[in-house]
Amino acid sequence: MNMELLLLSNSTLPGEPFFEWPRQYVNRFLAGRQRIGFVPFAAPEDQQDAYVEKVAEVFASFGRETIGLHKATDQNAAMDGVDLVAVGGGNSFLLLRSLYRSGLIRTLRDRVERGLPYLGWSAGANVACPTIMTTNDMPIVEPPSLKAFHFVPFQINPHYTEATIPGHGGESRGQRIAEYLALNPRSTVAGLREGALLQVSGDRMELHGTGMSVFRRGKPVVTLEGHAVLRRDLSDI
Amino acid sequence: MNMELLLLSNSTLPGEPFFEWPRQYVNRFLAGRQRIGFVPFAAPEDQQDAYVEKVAEVFASFGRETIGLHKATDQNAAMDGVDLVAVGGGNSFLLLRSLYRSGLIRTLRDRVERGLPYLGWSAGANVACPTIMTTNDMPIVEPPSLKAFHFVPFQINPHYTEATIPGHGGESRGQRIAEYLALNPRSTVAGLREGALLQVSGDRMELHGTGMSVFRRGKPVVTLEGHAVLRRDLSDI
Repeated sequence: MNMELLLLSNSTLPGEPFFEWPRQYVNRFLAGRQRIGFVPFAAPEDQQDAYVEKVAEVFASFGRETIGLHKATDQNAAMDGVDLVAVGGGNSFLLLRSLYRSGLIRTLRDRVERGLPYLGWSAGANVACPTIMTTNDMPIVEPPSLKAFHFVPFQINPHYTEATIPGHGGESRGQRIAEYLALNPRSTVAGLREGALLQVSGDRMELHGTGMSVFRRGKPVVTLEGHAVLRRDLSDI
Repeated sequence: MNMELLLLSNSTLPGEPFFEWPRQYVNRFLAGRQRIGFVPFAAPEDQQDAYVEKVAEVFASFGRETIGLHKATDQNAAMDGVDLVAVGGGNSFLLLRSLYRSGLIRTLRDRVERGLPYLGWSAGANVACPTIMTTNDMPIVEPPSLKAFHFVPFQINPHYTEATIPGHGGESRGQRIAEYLALNPRSTVAGLREGALLQVSGDRMELHGTGMSVFRRGKPVVTLEGHAVLRRDLSDI
């Protein structure tokens, strides 16, 4: 398995145009890859065509062609025809349910494990993890399982922030992750800030952008600001 | 089915002692009910005894006795011995998984449907709904189903707020509920603000405290401030 992954916390920073902050990283990741298969399953079905169009505009601005994979009748043939697969954000539960229903959970996993580059943001980064148990999303639908692609051996919490709503009693993100680790004590959680990404190539992983915090049960939180070169399993930090 | 329910958005307002704001309503609900069976399943197993103790202090301040139901070997016998059952907040997924694992999902439902009064707050209010699909919690464990007690025919979103984290790109609560309704178009969602509760007695329901917003697919949001008398199925608003 020599996987090529680009996992973004988010597509868009507040106040900026769609998909602005990650352009330089995505541009580099797209080098030599012309046709992009896009999976819009994190959006409700009646919004998927519009989602493909919106994303196609972004990839067109890089001179790339976008093929929506949501209507592929022969998924293997469809994936033979693309050089990279992208999975967009939205609702993680909806995305995962559709990955199961369509069978992409297997066909896409096989391709990515055999080297098809994978670009995912937000929910699309969440499903690259062993499960979606560190999502921030509301469980608006019930997937058959919370198990996901498992392209990386740790959990990402996208849109990670230490901030909370002022004067509101809900749990902070850190409290939620601590609860997750209490129930899943051998897991590692990467809290990926908005404006941060992880680029995986084989066993090597690079953090770019704003930064992230790494959470393990019973260990101090490790906060990384900006760029860092890491191992894919985070065993070096 | 002549159910008696007290469903609280939250136990505690920020900056106040534990279980302060709902005291007057809970005191009234406890009238004539001496022994309270408490279910601490929304907390991790190693924290459940401490949770029972914390809640027992509150009920003791009303002159009531608390019996932890988490270790009951004979659940029916245990429920024969209590006058009311209380289900505390914490993580909704964890609570629901434990309700299934223990079998309380059936035994407790039967009792409450036959008239045993039910007091639930936060996650304990969420499981009184058809599903936990409008929870705010992180899916830190995987219950066998998202289906819950279904004591009321609508969904509660506890800790409801329109506020968001400043400068952060995550979805607002309203956006999340709209997503839920897009996928579950026949459902009704009661966004119960912190400091609000619903008291159900048969077909009658009363809203007390700060207020709530009611969401339906394709309809304007109905916001209720303070006290209101409603039908249990919200068909009158």
